[in-house]
Amino acid sequence: MDYSRFLSSETDLMRDPEIRELLKLTERSDIVSFAGGLPDPQAFPLDELAEITVFAFREFGVSALQYGPTRGATPYVKELVEFLWRVRGVKASPDEVVVTVGSQQALDILSRVFVDLGDYVVVEEPTYLAALNVLRARKPRFVGVPVDDEGILVDVLEDKLRELRSEGKRVKFLYTIPVAQNPAGVTLSKRRKKRLVELAEEYDFLIVEDDVYGLLVFEDGIDTTPIRVLAPERTVYVGSFSKTLSPGMRLGHVIAPKPLADVLERAKQSIDLHTPTLTQYVAMEALRRGVVERNLPRIKTLYKMKRDIMLDALQENMPERVWWTKPVGGMFIWLKLNAQVDTSQLLLKAVERGVAYVPGKTFYHDMRETDTMRLNYTKPTADQIREGIKTLAEVVREALRS
Amino acid sequence: MDYSRFLSSETDLMRDPEIRELLKLTERSDIVSFAGGLPDPQAFPLDELAEITVFAFREFGVSALQYGPTRGATPYVKELVEFLWRVRGVKASPDEVVVTVGSQQALDILSRVFVDLGDYVVVEEPTYLAALNVLRARKPRFVGVPVDDEGILVDVLEDKLRELRSEGKRVKFLYTIPVAQNPAGVTLSKRRKKRLVELAEEYDFLIVEDDVYGLLVFEDGIDTTPIRVLAPERTVYVGSFSKTLSPGMRLGHVIAPKPLADVLERAKQSIDLHTPTLTQYVAMEALRRGVVERNLPRIKTLYKMKRDIMLDALQENMPERVWWTKPVGGMFIWLKLNAQVDTSQLLLKAVERGVAYVPGKTFYHDMRETDTMRLNYTKPTADQIREGIKTLAEVVREALRS
Repeated sequence: MDYSRFLSSETDLMRDPEIRELLKLTERSDIVSFAGGLPDPQAFPLDELAEITVFAFREFGVSALQYGPTRGATPYVKELVEFLWRVRGVKASPDEVVVTVGSQQALDILSRVFVDLGDYVVVEEPTYLAALNVLRARKPRFVGVPVDDEGILVDVLEDKLRELRSEGKRVKFLYTIPVAQNPAGVTLSKRRKKRLVELAEEYDFLIVEDDVYGLLVFEDGIDTTPIRVLAPERTVYVGSFSKTLSPGMRLGHVIAPKPLADVLERAKQSIDLHTPTLTQYVAMEALRRGVVERNLPRIKTLYKMKRDIMLDALQENMPERVWWTKPVGGMFIWLKLNAQVDTSQLLLKAVERGVAYVPGKTFYHDMRETDTMRLNYTKPTADQIREGIKTLAEVVREALRS
Repeated sequence: MDYSRFLSSETDLMRDPEIRELLKLTERSDIVSFAGGLPDPQAFPLDELAEITVFAFREFGVSALQYGPTRGATPYVKELVEFLWRVRGVKASPDEVVVTVGSQQALDILSRVFVDLGDYVVVEEPTYLAALNVLRARKPRFVGVPVDDEGILVDVLEDKLRELRSEGKRVKFLYTIPVAQNPAGVTLSKRRKKRLVELAEEYDFLIVEDDVYGLLVFEDGIDTTPIRVLAPERTVYVGSFSKTLSPGMRLGHVIAPKPLADVLERAKQSIDLHTPTLTQYVAMEALRRGVVERNLPRIKTLYKMKRDIMLDALQENMPERVWWTKPVGGMFIWLKLNAQVDTSQLLLKAVERGVAYVPGKTFYHDMRETDTMRLNYTKPTADQIREGIKTLAEVVREALRS
């Protein structure tokens, strides 16, 4: 039976199936995959979480199994608010919080609540591909602004905003990952952050701040102050425990000015009633006991080591014209071949040789740039990184030659 | 700051805020609430789940904390498929399954994947209000078909389908809760089920079968065969462990023909990547150990007792012209005053007197019927049911008098 006549137009917009199929191959165990975005399993505080779960069942069992509030379990929200204040300097009241199924759901709900067909939305070039996917479903007009080592190019942004204004058009929001950006690995500088906030005021748009890597900066002296701290009224802050506690728990959150949080709550209620309760109680107890804060130095040491191994391997093996970012945190290195090579074509060859990455063009709203790729260094082992980069460099070398 | 200029048109469609606010009052501890849809906490196999969670951490810890497949954790999906075959006679292959955050998310994803602006969707009158909410966000044209004691009126359905066809219009799908319907408490008869399937073939539409109460039938001799068993190619089956294991775990699932399951997977990936992993491993082990099947007789005995207490209390206290359903399972009784009374107006009075319900009109796509209400008998205690119905009968009596 052919089901295509039953499908909505939204289903046409779902992610490039060709790359999708290829990336499925990368799950084979004989492939060194830099394609994923997975934490190192060693980063999970497994034993502590096991013990906490037993405790949570004993102490809060019935509440943890029952339906809960759409915004999030009240005692968890309380702990979360205190945690964000301690570690990120984010001041929020409980009624500004909505707990979500990972930060991905936060992005989906925000897209639905903000974007109508044809609305203007600013995204970084490149940006998180799954954010692009949820936005695409709403059929907005994308305004792309490139990033460099200091994050989004605020001057280019200003030019585009001025141009739109002169045409009587307005931007609804700008989506940014200011710290350790995915995929580019860059971090927004203090100076540009300040200017970005001024522009949001001047041109009256909201900033959706995706702070999932905010706690994963392993270099000193980096300003990681959230935009939310500078402009609480303009900012919708998105966070997650996927990188600092466990991704499988799927615990994300939005901090938004109360009127917006109220709307998000109503949307979330239709979408799935509420985020699973048990995991919220487990996370609550983990926050109470300081598990995340205690665990973080260990994760950062681990990831810094792996990043350095990858940077060294790239330095040692890649041809000279190839360029890559040196991230101060997060999980990704962004690599540019500086050549007429389509990395999505090249992926098949790489996979045949036993190594995988995500082609760069999937991170562009208009699929423009084709000679880039995203490399993850947190999931593969040190040996896999060394071997995999060596292989990848061979593949790249051949491509540049032909 | 006024945020209304940033909101999408979809936010206008979100649930009646007036009733919403009123229902928030019903969470006060001094109110006997028949308004919720919560299981009796006594129904949760708390101790067993606590033990299983410890076991799941020990055995599958790293997998349970890591990102997982969008369709669901592979070993859980395998157990789920076997469970559905054992208890519901549903034959499915793992690649027909998508695990969701409760059945609510299933309904949301199905709405997004099937419905475009203006599409025709058949719903029962009355039907589950949260299903109406997710559908409304897609702006379909609703075709309402009433239910009676035998479920949806297939003759009325046929008339409407014929009329639509004569106008060159087609229905995309019909949404039904065949067993122990929410809110009406009615169950689709064998005869009508057969006719419904024939009509789906003849008029080429899909059936979205919401089977969340399929295991909660406590009378003998009721045909509860899922529609999916009769018409696997036409049916998208939605299930949940919220009523049989724990709602707080938020574990639902869709069983759909593979081409549709593939599309659902792509949608789910954008929406939240995947359902939390840990709870899937806990549920997997619970299914392996037969917890649900062992626990069900206890839940059914409990709910049957509570239903009988409510039916007796209604019989004893309600004025003669008032009519209500005698559900063979599920969690709700549907009550009709047979009078010119708007129960959404009446709710305020009821709440003042210490009793709450959900006004019937919220369960109609066109908010038509106003003299009905939904009563939940699973959450309140036996004493609360007796006292609450007595109070409610007084409120109703006064309303009928004036």
